[in-house]
Amino acid sequence: MTTVLGLDPGTRHFGWGVVERRGTRLFHAAHGIVHADERTSIAARLVVIELALVEVIAAHAPDEASVETIFFAKDAQAAAKLGHARGVALLVCARAGLDVYEYPPARVKKAVAGSGRAEKAQVAQMVRIVLGLAEAPVGDAADALALAVTHLHRAPIPIPGMKGVRRR
Amino acid sequence: MTTVLGLDPGTRHFGWGVVERRGTRLFHAAHGIVHADERTSIAARLVVIELALVEVIAAHAPDEASVETIFFAKDAQAAAKLGHARGVALLVCARAGLDVYEYPPARVKKAVAGSGRAEKAQVAQMVRIVLGLAEAPVGDAADALALAVTHLHRAPIPIPGMKGVRRR
Repeated sequence: MTTVLGLDPGTRHFGWGVVERRGTRLFHAAHGIVHADERTSIAARLVVIELALVEVIAAHAPDEASVETIFFAKDAQAAAKLGHARGVALLVCARAGLDVYEYPPARVKKAVAGSGRAEKAQVAQMVRIVLGLAEAPVGDAADALALAVTHLHRAPIPIPGMKGVRRR
Repeated sequence: MTTVLGLDPGTRHFGWGVVERRGTRLFHAAHGIVHADERTSIAARLVVIELALVEVIAAHAPDEASVETIFFAKDAQAAAKLGHARGVALLVCARAGLDVYEYPPARVKKAVAGSGRAEKAQVAQMVRIVLGLAEAPVGDAADALALAVTHLHRAPIPIPGMKGVRRR
């Protein structure tokens, strides 16, 4: 079994999702959004995010983490802010011994919804179907689950009775 | 006595400096640069930075922290990267109960060297003189000390025997 923690960092809403792979099947374990109070300082919000992620990792013991690549050239200020939350995410994962993988948004959309230009709602719907959820998870949590699914689709699956592994 | 931790974040070289104010005089306590191995992942580097900052705070018990404002519009990628290190810095400070203040680079240069356009070497020289150091501290550590000095110059100084405080 491989358990992957998907993370969609943000300083106000931080999405996370845990997906397990047993054999070739994927299972939803949990997901959520850390809402950090916008009226507090960014430093205080990072503490809230850290605590929440430490708890998620303790509860679900993921093996690996999957985080979105930062790549947008338009706004340095927004990139820096996002970097704060992403930095804390990488820190918490590395401290817990998780290997961290990153995927560009278009790759995630393609892996989950079949097209690099899929809409957000489409991604959430496909996450719902792939993981057999009763309803589509909201925004940032859907993206976090999509990141975990993308990583599990991509990572080599051990074939029972064989020594090697193959890429899907 | 007020003890201020100045921080000049970076994912490769992270400068820090501790300055104390007793009465109206400033004293150098310590400074250094955390060098994180460039061959390791950014996540691993953030762990190194966190550990070092936790140790610095434990050793010097600062009351407040002073960090540079991120404001440059040219390169979102660089801003995001810097944001990772800065996010970890804010996290560690907030967790330790320090109030964090931020100053734009031009303000720091003006406070320390008299001009918002002072060169880096000039800032390092003025830091050396103000704090009575034998030699000018190197790059990132000089900037970190300059941030601490800037904050102490700006913060209200308690006047003995008076209830109020005044701004310098």
